[in-house]
Amino acid sequence: MENHRPFLVLLFFAFAVGFISVVFVLRWVLHFREGLSWDGGAKEFNWHPLLAVTGFIFLQGIAIVVYRLPWTWKCSKLMMKLIHAGLSVLAFILAVISLVAVFDFHNVQNIPNMYSLHSWVGLIAVILFSLQIVLGLCIFLLPVSPGFLRAAFLPVHVFSGLFIFTTVIATALMGITEKLIFGLKDPKYKDSPPEATFVNVLGLLLTLFGALILWIATRSSWKRPSETLLHNNEPASDSIKTDTAMSERHDPEPNSEARRRNGKTEE
Amino acid sequence: MENHRPFLVLLFFAFAVGFISVVFVLRWVLHFREGLSWDGGAKEFNWHPLLAVTGFIFLQGIAIVVYRLPWTWKCSKLMMKLIHAGLSVLAFILAVISLVAVFDFHNVQNIPNMYSLHSWVGLIAVILFSLQIVLGLCIFLLPVSPGFLRAAFLPVHVFSGLFIFTTVIATALMGITEKLIFGLKDPKYKDSPPEATFVNVLGLLLTLFGALILWIATRSSWKRPSETLLHNNEPASDSIKTDTAMSERHDPEPNSEARRRNGKTEE
Repeated sequence: MENHRPFLVLLFFAFAVGFISVVFVLRWVLHFREGLSWDGGAKEFNWHPLLAVTGFIFLQGIAIVVYRLPWTWKCSKLMMKLIHAGLSVLAFILAVISLVAVFDFHNVQNIPNMYSLHSWVGLIAVILFSLQIVLGLCIFLLPVSPGFLRAAFLPVHVFSGLFIFTTVIATALMGITEKLIFGLKDPKYKDSPPEATFVNVLGLLLTLFGALILWIATRSSWKRPSETLLHNNEPASDSIKTDTAMSERHDPEPNSEARRRNGKTEE
Repeated sequence: MENHRPFLVLLFFAFAVGFISVVFVLRWVLHFREGLSWDGGAKEFNWHPLLAVTGFIFLQGIAIVVYRLPWTWKCSKLMMKLIHAGLSVLAFILAVISLVAVFDFHNVQNIPNMYSLHSWVGLIAVILFSLQIVLGLCIFLLPVSPGFLRAAFLPVHVFSGLFIFTTVIATALMGITEKLIFGLKDPKYKDSPPEATFVNVLGLLLTLFGALILWIATRSSWKRPSETLLHNNEPASDSIKTDTAMSERHDPEPNSEARRRNGKTEE
């Protein structure tokens, strides 16, 4: 790996920003809001931001960069795929529970469901994420899946993963906006009470977390080396044969094109 | 270029979605809202969404993919840089006028400025975009700028361009959320009147436009060929020497690394 130290510094920074975001949302619901419970009231709603940020943003972000961690390169590719899939499924489960919490809260409080842009984009993101997981499992983990299919689907899987992650953060920013407008009455959001400033900072932290994960995931020099390279100890100059799981789109065309033509892929 | 037809279809689709978004925001402010004027009232506010979508999203999106248009490949690289910079500066000017409109409206109506997450993220995006333009002009257009600086800055310029573009769309989604909550009184946003549904669809169109532009900009096989390739008519197998303006990060490491070491860049 080139630039080992900058990678580790940025990875630590991303992890710290993601973790602080989770602490912020926890403080928001416990200190500024009503706390947590499963009673059909405001305390049940509060699971929605907590689980969405913890699962759908923080865990999904970690799942995206998990192939990049140098200390996992001695693990087999299959093991890393299982960890990537496991983190993604866990993120999905937390996202679904966060949806159940908000639908249940709306139903008990007689608030309509699915009227806002936040809910439209959020539901689309959950549906796309479920498709992403199902197709990912079938294509990259089922042994019967042919190589040409894996090669053809990989760029779509990579792009849609980053796109869904980004869309979820945008959805969270809309959710924060809604909740601060509806939740703050006296003083109002426009009066900038401490809760408003605190949760605006949470929004900035989520945006920064997104930027860091996207930067790490799109640096071709930080990719996991190919299996061949890892096990045969080939010279570093051969590094264009890098792993394609997170960044197929960075490959030079002749290489990826040849792989596509041969129906071969490291996936 | 590989896959010429899919590129043209997607490019047309992206342009159509972006153009329809502009039509939607125009219909929103003219049909559902009060229209356009510069009077310190609601009509002045309406310039804010119109110019933000037209300039900061649609024009910026076009500026991002302008290097990819095959019919511009016979133009010189300098000409394309000037078009890219010109579109970006125009997008910036419209974004600034859209900011002036909303600040002026707030001041006349005694509404506080800069309290919402929408305003925080939006202002950061405008500041980053101004830095992006100034640094881009100085580093890639000033003849005295050294090659090693261009090579070192290019990945940052590419990433931050796509990041700012994405952030502006997220900001627009927050702005739509705010405006529909504040603007719809009877019926309210939660009652899903026609305006709410119409503007939610605008939000989806902006998200789709973002996805299409990001997909086009990150396909390495759709890059503008290098100047050498264009002018010397070298064989297609040499296509790893592609233009780096929009997608330096897709280059194989050995190639970009060698370019960095030599202090040479096509920029």
